[in-house]
Amino acid sequence: MKVNLSSLDTCESSFTPLVVLELAQDVKEETKEWLKNRIVSKKEDGDDNNDFLTMAECQFIIKHELENLRAREEKMIPGYPQAKLYPGKSLLRRLLTSGIVIQVFPLHDNEALKKLEDSWYTRFSLKYQPLDRIRGYFGETIALYFGFLEYFTVALIPMAVIGLPYYLFVWEDYDKYVIFASFNLIWSTVILEVWKRGCASMTYRWGTLVMKRQFEEPRPGFHGVLGINPVTGREEPLYPSYKRQLRIYLVSLPFVCLCLYFSLYVMMIYFDMEAWALSLHESSGSEWTSILLYVPSIIYAIVIEIMNRLYRYAAEFLTSWENHRLESAYQNHLILKVLVFNFLNCFASLFYIAFVLRDMKLLRQSLATLLITSQILNQIMESLLPYWLQKKHHVQVKRKVQALKADIDATLYEQVVLEKEMGTYLGTFDDYLELFLQFGYVSLFSCVYPLAAAFAVLNNFTEVNSDALKMCRVLKRPFSEPSANIGVWQLAFETMSVISVVTNCALIGMSPQVNALFPESKLDLILIVVAVEHALLALKFILAFAIPDKPRHIQMKLARLEFESLEALKRQPSENIIEEKAPFTKEAKRENQMKLMAQNLKEDSREGNKEEEA
Amino acid sequence: MKVNLSSLDTCESSFTPLVVLELAQDVKEETKEWLKNRIVSKKEDGDDNNDFLTMAECQFIIKHELENLRAREEKMIPGYPQAKLYPGKSLLRRLLTSGIVIQVFPLHDNEALKKLEDSWYTRFSLKYQPLDRIRGYFGETIALYFGFLEYFTVALIPMAVIGLPYYLFVWEDYDKYVIFASFNLIWSTVILEVWKRGCASMTYRWGTLVMKRQFEEPRPGFHGVLGINPVTGREEPLYPSYKRQLRIYLVSLPFVCLCLYFSLYVMMIYFDMEAWALSLHESSGSEWTSILLYVPSIIYAIVIEIMNRLYRYAAEFLTSWENHRLESAYQNHLILKVLVFNFLNCFASLFYIAFVLRDMKLLRQSLATLLITSQILNQIMESLLPYWLQKKHHVQVKRKVQALKADIDATLYEQVVLEKEMGTYLGTFDDYLELFLQFGYVSLFSCVYPLAAAFAVLNNFTEVNSDALKMCRVLKRPFSEPSANIGVWQLAFETMSVISVVTNCALIGMSPQVNALFPESKLDLILIVVAVEHALLALKFILAFAIPDKPRHIQMKLARLEFESLEALKRQPSENIIEEKAPFTKEAKRENQMKLMAQNLKEDSREGNKEEEA
Repeated sequence: MKVNLSSLDTCESSFTPLVVLELAQDVKEETKEWLKNRIVSKKEDGDDNNDFLTMAECQFIIKHELENLRAREEKMIPGYPQAKLYPGKSLLRRLLTSGIVIQVFPLHDNEALKKLEDSWYTRFSLKYQPLDRIRGYFGETIALYFGFLEYFTVALIPMAVIGLPYYLFVWEDYDKYVIFASFNLIWSTVILEVWKRGCASMTYRWGTLVMKRQFEEPRPGFHGVLGINPVTGREEPLYPSYKRQLRIYLVSLPFVCLCLYFSLYVMMIYFDMEAWALSLHESSGSEWTSILLYVPSIIYAIVIEIMNRLYRYAAEFLTSWENHRLESAYQNHLILKVLVFNFLNCFASLFYIAFVLRDMKLLRQSLATLLITSQILNQIMESLLPYWLQKKHHVQVKRKVQALKADIDATLYEQVVLEKEMGTYLGTFDDYLELFLQFGYVSLFSCVYPLAAAFAVLNNFTEVNSDALKMCRVLKRPFSEPSANIGVWQLAFETMSVISVVTNCALIGMSPQVNALFPESKLDLILIVVAVEHALLALKFILAFAIPDKPRHIQMKLARLEFESLEALKRQPSENIIEEKAPFTKEAKRENQMKLMAQNLKEDSREGNKEEEA
Repeated sequence: MKVNLSSLDTCESSFTPLVVLELAQDVKEETKEWLKNRIVSKKEDGDDNNDFLTMAECQFIIKHELENLRAREEKMIPGYPQAKLYPGKSLLRRLLTSGIVIQVFPLHDNEALKKLEDSWYTRFSLKYQPLDRIRGYFGETIALYFGFLEYFTVALIPMAVIGLPYYLFVWEDYDKYVIFASFNLIWSTVILEVWKRGCASMTYRWGTLVMKRQFEEPRPGFHGVLGINPVTGREEPLYPSYKRQLRIYLVSLPFVCLCLYFSLYVMMIYFDMEAWALSLHESSGSEWTSILLYVPSIIYAIVIEIMNRLYRYAAEFLTSWENHRLESAYQNHLILKVLVFNFLNCFASLFYIAFVLRDMKLLRQSLATLLITSQILNQIMESLLPYWLQKKHHVQVKRKVQALKADIDATLYEQVVLEKEMGTYLGTFDDYLELFLQFGYVSLFSCVYPLAAAFAVLNNFTEVNSDALKMCRVLKRPFSEPSANIGVWQLAFETMSVISVVTNCALIGMSPQVNALFPESKLDLILIVVAVEHALLALKFILAFAIPDKPRHIQMKLARLEFESLEALKRQPSENIIEEKAPFTKEAKRENQMKLMAQNLKEDSREGNKEEEA
């Protein structure tokens, strides 16, 4: 383990650098000494550097150990009297919040990275991604994202294949979209159920399927007045729940509503622009003005992207200010805020065009422009631009390093200097969000613009590569993180697919072909459409309920595992007589229950402060 | 423990009879001897008769121990070469299926029963039931049913209170039912969420909230060809899944569809009768024929009850013939079959009247007759008639016993003879089903007949008493059974409340008052109603998602329990070094996972044959 750059020359020959802990420039000697001692004294009883573990796993252990260095009798950080400590407080967090430690990040393994890149994206060919290798290098969470991206892209192909002839042969013929919308509807239900099963197979292979994460520690940013935690009975910062509720309902909620209103206001300006462009085109009628027709949509798409990004910062600030105790509560509030706004911001204009204006031509044009513009913008902003900046910076650093330090191991020094300046990967949130919006464009309205799926496929093929490039070359290596599934995003995608059933039914009901079947009575038409929609929704819920979340062979393997562990337990002498009896008395039940929980607990740190969800 | 009646006179003075195991009359001596030895040799290492346990708990232990008497080297039941055994086969099951043992049932504790009755139903007064005592005497499953019945009755009171003035003052004025339907809608959503929380508090107190029942043994009726279980690797009967699927899809499904069709056919006959009665009334117009108007509904209600009961037997036979391996799979298939049929059978005519005939007067009349007739029939058939028969039988037995045996302990002999002839309680299924249908009558259409809730409340007040009487005096005491919640019924009630949202919205949309608001455009009206309905359904799902299933104080207590067990574990020397490390390597995860499962497993019998869900 590396503590700071100056200790580089004293390292042993077999030493592999794993994690960088960057200290502020002016840190006092006494603090450095203390920190080094604390880290080393913790390290003595571990045996981390083992061939048995992958590099990403070693880095995860180091992160885990560093985060669990906790204050014992120290009242403050030595040398920094203003950085207060209390027993049990995580040292690393205090060091980070006090600005003494600037960052902690794992180093890339250049050799492994090169191999990974070669099998992943550098040689362009149509093949599946090396998900197991990605998992080995970046951990389960990121591998699952790439797995989902790949699955989703493959799942889009049928839609794209069906959509293409629609575009080529019957462009102006809306009539056929009953079939397309029906297909859309089944498709969006089925792919999500199939994914759940595929995901279970994958995480079973990785050993994280049955992972439990019941115990969470307070998130780093949480602050409060010292008090007694009612669960643990320990002294630690507490923040009253009613204050948080007040902040949520009196500040965050109005702010979100204001943003939603503003977004709708911008949408109205877009429609004014649209009307102005149309009138200009109609009055002049030239070739030039027909291109002008697309300009309002393009501008609107760019404005949407900018608003989404700005809102994201505001949402992060607000959610952080709400002072949630647990990371999961923070994440849930953030995701809710961002999803609601992004959904309205991206789709409000389309809903308005489809169901208020009922202008299918404008809907198609608007959908196409929004989809394509946002995809191009995303690719540029996310990967290509940072990669280019990164490359320029790389050359500069290399030159500097070669000029200054020729005596020590320049490669490692160069690597550390380079990587510490790289951007930080902020988690899979933005990547999933992008896919979520894409899923919306495709499943909600694609029967009007069947090419949407084809564009999405095309985008995702390049997205895989640009995301891979981003992970490998543009950003700091992230710490690996185990996970069992894509979490809240499964729910988000399922909600979107329910909305898409409603939208598609409404679009079918509005189609001229269906309307022609009921020339006299619109009433009957609507009643039938509503009845069909309800039946489809019911079918969707029944399907989701009836299809098992885990494939049969995984269920079998889990059952076998359970059985074998039971057999193993029987062979080992039992310590507890109470379990030999029928397990139903209150005391026996409590006992069993406690043991069960204790087992889960052990998975978490020994020092973890347990608490209920805030 | 009592093996047979003849051993009565040899029992010790402190002996409390708990469970009766009734043998067939002609059982061979050698078999009796063997069975007695097997039971006693098992009993030696237990210490069951402890004041620490309640009587119901002792009985549960005995049942558990009896069911886990398993064949070792025996190839058949001694004395009965046709009753084959294989290692691990439950002896009791083979004895029961071979007709050697007729039944096993726990005895009532007359003293405790008297006390329970006094605090429960014999002294009529308005108070809550002694649920903790009921749980002590009958176990959690039955106590939960009575808890739900009580909760549901109390929850109906606001509906009844609002409904009463509707009936008294505005009987013929449908206009107001917008308010009533809206109230209905919120009510049906809220009560189910509140119940979930109340139920969690209750089962927390009883210690069954966090109970896990992952491991199930094959159900008694399951049969198959001897083969190797892929999970346990043991020799045991197997039945191929595809055969079961064939039986389900080729026989059961068509049969259920046929029954549904038949039920609709009967409904049509009812409408013919209705039309005939109306024409008769119109042609004569006398007072006498106006009573005749109710006759078809009453006959139809009785026919529905009969069909429900007949279908119930058919469904049980079919589901049993499908040869499900697990009791839970059997129960799920049975419940599904019965619920679908009962729902259609009871509500199809009401839906037809409401939405096809749109005759609100007939709907009200039909609803009232169905509800009241079925309630009266149920009360009589379920409790009063059996109680009366029971009483007559009791007197006969008493006389016989007094005449025959004056020398031995006549009370116990009499009790055993009496109780062995009592009916067997077949579980809470029918009781919940009755409440489910009642919930349907009240929540689906009560805005047309606001008195429905009042009748339901009235019925439930007597239902509590007649069910209590049934449990205490009419039926054999059931073995106590732990459970954490009302299981699949929660889902069934929630589904019904979703359907009630749709129905109520449709009724509101059809009301003259609302129609008067849109004199020109029916189209706008329908679109608005559909939009409101979708918004309400969305709100319902969000509410169900947002309201935590466990109250905060229970969450806190569970968290505290978890924390304390963690602390206890820390203090005890750890056996496994691997858990001291960060728990993320594949091996460590598997290890933890296996331990976790092993813990769950121990709650089940040591001999349990583990298998996946069939």
